[in-house]
Amino acid sequence: MATPIYVLGGYQTDFARNWKKENKHIVAMMREAALGGLEATGLEPKEIDVGHVGNFAAELYAMQGHLGAFLVDIDPSFSGLPTARHEAACASGSIAILAASAEIEAGRYDLAMVVGVEQMKTVDPGRGADFLGTAAWYDREAKGIEFPFPKLFGRLGDEYDKRFGLKDEHLAHISTINYSNAKRNPLAQTRSWYMTEDHARSTDKFNSVIGGRIKISDCSQVTDGAASLFLASEKAAAAYAKKRGIKLESIPKLLGWGHKTAPIEFDAKVAESKGNPYVLPHTRQAILDAFKRAGIADCWGVDAIETHDCFTTSEYMAIDHFGLTKPGEAWKAVEDGTIEMGGKLPINPSGGLIGCGHPVGSTGTRQVLDAYKQVTGQCGEYQVDGAKKVATLNIGGSGTTSVAFVVG
Amino acid sequence: MATPIYVLGGYQTDFARNWKKENKHIVAMMREAALGGLEATGLEPKEIDVGHVGNFAAELYAMQGHLGAFLVDIDPSFSGLPTARHEAACASGSIAILAASAEIEAGRYDLAMVVGVEQMKTVDPGRGADFLGTAAWYDREAKGIEFPFPKLFGRLGDEYDKRFGLKDEHLAHISTINYSNAKRNPLAQTRSWYMTEDHARSTDKFNSVIGGRIKISDCSQVTDGAASLFLASEKAAAAYAKKRGIKLESIPKLLGWGHKTAPIEFDAKVAESKGNPYVLPHTRQAILDAFKRAGIADCWGVDAIETHDCFTTSEYMAIDHFGLTKPGEAWKAVEDGTIEMGGKLPINPSGGLIGCGHPVGSTGTRQVLDAYKQVTGQCGEYQVDGAKKVATLNIGGSGTTSVAFVVG
Repeated sequence: MATPIYVLGGYQTDFARNWKKENKHIVAMMREAALGGLEATGLEPKEIDVGHVGNFAAELYAMQGHLGAFLVDIDPSFSGLPTARHEAACASGSIAILAASAEIEAGRYDLAMVVGVEQMKTVDPGRGADFLGTAAWYDREAKGIEFPFPKLFGRLGDEYDKRFGLKDEHLAHISTINYSNAKRNPLAQTRSWYMTEDHARSTDKFNSVIGGRIKISDCSQVTDGAASLFLASEKAAAAYAKKRGIKLESIPKLLGWGHKTAPIEFDAKVAESKGNPYVLPHTRQAILDAFKRAGIADCWGVDAIETHDCFTTSEYMAIDHFGLTKPGEAWKAVEDGTIEMGGKLPINPSGGLIGCGHPVGSTGTRQVLDAYKQVTGQCGEYQVDGAKKVATLNIGGSGTTSVAFVVG
Repeated sequence: MATPIYVLGGYQTDFARNWKKENKHIVAMMREAALGGLEATGLEPKEIDVGHVGNFAAELYAMQGHLGAFLVDIDPSFSGLPTARHEAACASGSIAILAASAEIEAGRYDLAMVVGVEQMKTVDPGRGADFLGTAAWYDREAKGIEFPFPKLFGRLGDEYDKRFGLKDEHLAHISTINYSNAKRNPLAQTRSWYMTEDHARSTDKFNSVIGGRIKISDCSQVTDGAASLFLASEKAAAAYAKKRGIKLESIPKLLGWGHKTAPIEFDAKVAESKGNPYVLPHTRQAILDAFKRAGIADCWGVDAIETHDCFTTSEYMAIDHFGLTKPGEAWKAVEDGTIEMGGKLPINPSGGLIGCGHPVGSTGTRQVLDAYKQVTGQCGEYQVDGAKKVATLNIGGSGTTSVAFVVG
C-alpha cells in the first residue's frame, strides 16, 4: 500500500464469558478491549486521534446504537475524540479497520483505535438466529425461517457437492481441527469443550442437524466478545518505536487489503457464478487484491490464515478460494494435513469462529489481532513457528461482503 | 484539504412519501436515490468504484442490516462493488461522507456513491421514539421514558435558559422560519402543512407539549427518505468535466470538514461545558475545524447554512456555535432576520429537519446535497442568491457526534 499502516497491537476479551450473566452492559466489553489494548501497547489515551467501532447489530441484541460515542466514555481524555461505527454484518470488524486505515492513509489522523464488539448472549438462540437473518435479505431469505444462516451455508455445501462433489466427513474434519486448535487458545470460547472427530461425524441427539447438511458441530458459536486494534501512520509508528528503543521495521504492517461485495441473495450469487471456477468469485477477488497489494504471488507467500469459518462449509470454500488447492479440491488440503497446526499452511490456529468464537462485529478485528500476535510470536500454545505473514478473510452475509488482509 | 474531493451531484427522494403505505422495501428507497443520482449526474453505474451507506437503525425500523450490500442489487454492473454502512445516530449520513472522502483522499478509489437512508414510518410514534432512544445511552436516558429525545433537547433549552436566558417565542420563530422555507422546497415533507407563528407559539391541543419545553412545532419530523451524493477525486472530476465540456473549477468541492464526539450522556455534556462559553464545545470545535480546513475565518465566509434542527433548541444552539452571535445571544439573529431567506446568513433554506424532514440516516447526505444545489444554483424557489459557499452541521445523539462540512 502507498502509505504503510502499522499495527501496534490490541486486546481480546475472553470469548468464553457471558456478559449478561455478569450483569454488564456492552460498553463494559468495549471498555475492557480499549483499556486492555492501551495497556498491551503502552499507549496513553491522549495519544489516540480517532476511534472506530465495528459492530453488526447492537440495536437488536442490546437495544443500543451510536456505539462509536461510547469510546469517549472510556477515558476522560477521549472527550472530543472523533468516532464512528461501521457495519457490514459479520464483516463489520474488517470494515472498521478499512475505515480507520483509509483515514490514516489520507493523512487525517496518525493513531486510530478500532474496537470490534458484539454482545449476543442477551436473547435465546432462536431469536438470535432471527437477528442474524438481517445480514441476509431478511424478508426474502430469513423471515419465518428457523435458523436461516445454517441453511444458507448448508446450501453453499450443496453447491460444492453439485459442482465438484463434497463428503461430509471433510466438513467434520474441519470442525475437529478448529475445536482442537481452540484448546491451545486461552481466550477461545470452546477451549474446555468436548469434541472429537467421531462426535463431529455423528448425527445424534448430541449433534443434531440445524438445517440442510449443517449440524451443531459445523456451526460457529454464539459469542460475547470484543477485540481492539491500534493502527498507526509511519510518523506515529516511528515515534512509538523510538520511545521504546525498538526498530520501526519490527512493527508489523497491514501489507494489503481486498474488499468486494456480491449480490446479497444466495440464489443470485449462485446464478452469477455459474460457469466460474469459483463458487464465490468476489470473495476470491478480495483475497487476490489483498495478495496483490501485499506484493505476494499466492497463498504460499503467507505462513498462516485466519479465515471466516462461520460454518465448516465457509472454511471449505476458503481453502480453494485462497488457492491452497484447485477449485473443488479443498478436500485434499483437509485430508493431507496442510491446514493443521504444523501443516504446510495452517488455517485458524486460533480455533477460528467455530473454536475461538464468533462475536459477529468483533471477528474481523480479532482475526487481524491474531495475525498481529502470530507475526510477533505472541500466540503461545497456538503459535505458528516463525510466522512472518498471516492472511485473514472476514465475510458478511452468505458470502456477500468479503474483506481480506495480509499482516506482516 | 490536501486532496480535493469534488461533489458531482446527487438525488433526494420526496420526503413527504410514506414508503410502507406504498408497500415498498427500504431497498426501493435506496434504489431511487442511487439511480436518480446517476441520472442527475449523468454517470454510468460502471464508473462507480465504491458504495457507502449512511443509516441509523434499519435493524429496528425495517428488520434489515447489511444495507451496504443492497447497493450491489441496484444495477448488474455494481456486482463486486466494495460497500459499507456507517452509523453515528442522526449523524450517520455525514459519517458515510467522511468515510467515502477519506478513501478517495487515500487514493483507494476515484468515484464514490454515498446513499443516506432511513425508513421510519414503519412503526407507531411511541415505538419510533423508543428506537431513537438508542442514539442516547438507552438504559440510562431513554428506557421507559416516553419520547426521550424531545426531553433531552428540551433540557438543552433549559441549559440556555439557565446560563443566558431563553424566550420560547424565539424557538417558535425558528420553527416558523423552517416551515416557511419548506413551502418553497418541492421535496420537503411539510411543504403543504399549515403552520403560522401564532400556531407555533400556542400550547393547545393542536400544538401539545411533547416533553419539557418542547411542543410539536419545535420538533423535526418522522420521515422516510434517502439522498445520494457522488464524490470524486480530482482525476475523476477532471475526466467528468472534460467529457461534458465544462471547467473543473465549476465543480463544487468539500472545502472542509470537522468531526468531534462529546460524552454520550446529556448530563456529562453539561457538566463538562460548565464555565465554557459554549454549551456544546465539541460541536463548536467541529464547526471551527471545518472552517479552518476550508480556509475561511468565520461563518461570514459562507452564504448559507444547513443545520441540524432536530428541535428548535438545536438550531438555537447552532446559531451561536456557528458564530452568528456571541454565546447566548442567538435570539438577536432570530429577531433581526439574519437567518431568514434574504437575511445576512440564511439558515436552512431547505426547511431543515423541521420543515424538509428528518429521515435520520439520510439527513447528513441531504444537507450536503442541498449545499451542492445551492452553490450550483439549482435550488429554485429556495435558492440563496449567489451562494458560493454553504456550511452544514449534522448532529448524532444529544449533541454527541458533530460533523460539519463546507461545500463550495
